Amino acid sequence: MCQLLGMNCNVPTDICFSFEGFAARGGKTDEHRDGWGIAFFEGLGCRIFLDEKPAIASPVAELVQRYPIKSKHVIAHIRKATHGGIALENCHPFQRELWGRYWAFAHNGNLDNLVYEPGTYYRPVGQTDSEQAFCRILETLRQHFPLEKPPLDQLYPVLNSITQVLATAGIFNYLLSDGEHFFAHCTTKLCYIVRRSPFAAAHLIDEDVTVDFQELTCPSDRVAIIATTPLTDNEIWTMISPGELLVFQDGIPLMQYSE
Amino acid sequence: MCQLLGMNCNVPTDICFSFEGFAARGGKTDEHRDGWGIAFFEGLGCRIFLDEKPAIASPVAELVQRYPIKSKHVIAHIRKATHGGIALENCHPFQRELWGRYWAFAHNGNLDNLVYEPGTYYRPVGQTDSEQAFCRILETLRQHFPLEKPPLDQLYPVLNSITQVLATAGIFNYLLSDGEHFFAHCTTKLCYIVRRSPFAAAHLIDEDVTVDFQELTCPSDRVAIIATTPLTDNEIWTMISPGELLVFQDGIPLMQYSE
Repeated sequence: MCQLLGMNCNVPTDICFSFEGFAARGGKTDEHRDGWGIAFFEGLGCRIFLDEKPAIASPVAELVQRYPIKSKHVIAHIRKATHGGIALENCHPFQRELWGRYWAFAHNGNLDNLVYEPGTYYRPVGQTDSEQAFCRILETLRQHFPLEKPPLDQLYPVLNSITQVLATAGIFNYLLSDGEHFFAHCTTKLCYIVRRSPFAAAHLIDEDVTVDFQELTCPSDRVAIIATTPLTDNEIWTMISPGELLVFQDGIPLMQYSE
Repeated sequence: MCQLLGMNCNVPTDICFSFEGFAARGGKTDEHRDGWGIAFFEGLGCRIFLDEKPAIASPVAELVQRYPIKSKHVIAHIRKATHGGIALENCHPFQRELWGRYWAFAHNGNLDNLVYEPGTYYRPVGQTDSEQAFCRILETLRQHFPLEKPPLDQLYPVLNSITQVLATAGIFNYLLSDGEHFFAHCTTKLCYIVRRSPFAAAHLIDEDVTVDFQELTCPSDRVAIIATTPLTDNEIWTMISPGELLVFQDGIPLMQYSE
C-alpha cells in the first residue's frame, strides 16, 4: 500500500513542512520505499518530480524539501510496490491532458479485480492498476464531455459514478486535480485538515519539527492538507468517510459535494 | 529563439558535462533566461524537470547538474520567450502519451505563420507555437497509425511529411523522442557529435571545464550529443543540413533515414 499527501489552498503556498513529515514515511518512519512523486500546479502548468528511489534517499526529494515551490494544488505519493515493478513509469502521480488542462492523479490501495478496458483516448504506459484507473476516469469524463470541462455540478456526478464503479474492484483512495478543482476519494483511509486564521503551531508526527504558521501566513490564507493518515499530533484531522468523494477549492471542501 | 540539447546513447549515460555548458547559456554566456526544461527517459518512464526561472538561477538546474541521472534519451531546452509568456506551461520539453509510450518534444525557432488546427486527441495547454506543433505531429501520427507504433520505415515518412508542412510556417528545429527512437530536425541550426572509442578529453566552450571520457566510459559505449551550436571547442561537430530529419538510435544516426 502507498501513502497520499495533497494540498489545496486559496493562495500559492509551499508544502515543505508537510512534505518533510511525509517523505520520512518513504523508508524512515514507514516502509514505502519503492519510489515517490509530487505534482505542483502553477497556473495552467504542472510539474511532476518523480524518483524510483526511496523518498528518504532521493536527491530530488531533498530538493523538494529545500526549494519552496508555491502552488495551490499539490499531489504527492510514496509507493510500496504491489502491482507493477519498481520503475519510473510506475511512480505516481500520473499526468495526462484533458480539455486543454493537465490532470494529475495518485492512488493508494489495490484494485485487484480491475479488468483492463482499452480506451479511445488514454492508454497506460506502466503496469499499475492505478494508471489504468486514472485512464478510465479521464476516458469516461471525455466520453461524457468531449469538448470542454463542464461546470462542477455536471462533472461531479460523472466522476463520482466512475469512481464508485472502479472502487468495486478493490481499495481506491485517490487524489486528482486539474489545477482548478481538487478531488479526494476515500474507500478506507484518507483524512484532512483546514488551516486558517487564527493560525497556530503544528508539530509533525514523523519528525520532531514544529512550524508556527502564524509567522508565515496572512489572515486570509486557507490551506487544506489531505493525507492517508494525520501528519501532525497537535491538530484535529477530519476522517473522510468511506465512499466519499470530496471536492476542495480555495482551501476548503465544497460541502454540497460531500454528502 | 531558444536552444536545444539532446543525447542519445547505447547505454544509460548521464548528461552532467554537456548540461553544465548548456545551462550556462541560460542567462550567463547567452540570453535564454525565460525558463528551461529537461526530459529523461528511463525504460518506459519519462521524467521532466521544468522551471520558468533562468537555468543559471534555478535550484532544479543545479540538481540536474549534481545528480547523475542515467538515460539513453535526453531532451533539454532553454527558452527565450517569443510566443507565449514566461510561465511553466510554456516551458519545453512538452510531454504526451501515444501508443502507450511517452513522447517528449522541444523546439527552437518561431512558427509565425502556424495556423492552429484543433485535433481529435491532443490539445495544447500553454500558448506556444511549439506545443501546437507537437500536438499536430502526434495527431498526424495517430491518425495514420491509430493503434500501435509502426516500424520505423513506415513512421519516418509520415513524421517527415508533417514536419515539412509545419516547417513552412517558420523555423522548426526540434528534438523528439519516445524513449526508443530519437528524432532531430533542422531548418536553420542543429549539429551533433558521436563520441565513441577511442574516447578523448572534451573541453566546454561555455565553461572552462574539461572531461576525459576515457576515464568514464567502456570501449563499447556510444553517445550522440545533438545541440543548437557546438558545446565543445576541441571536437568536430557535424552540422545537420536544413530540411533534414535525422533518427538516432543507440548513439548513432541511422544513415538510411538521413538523405
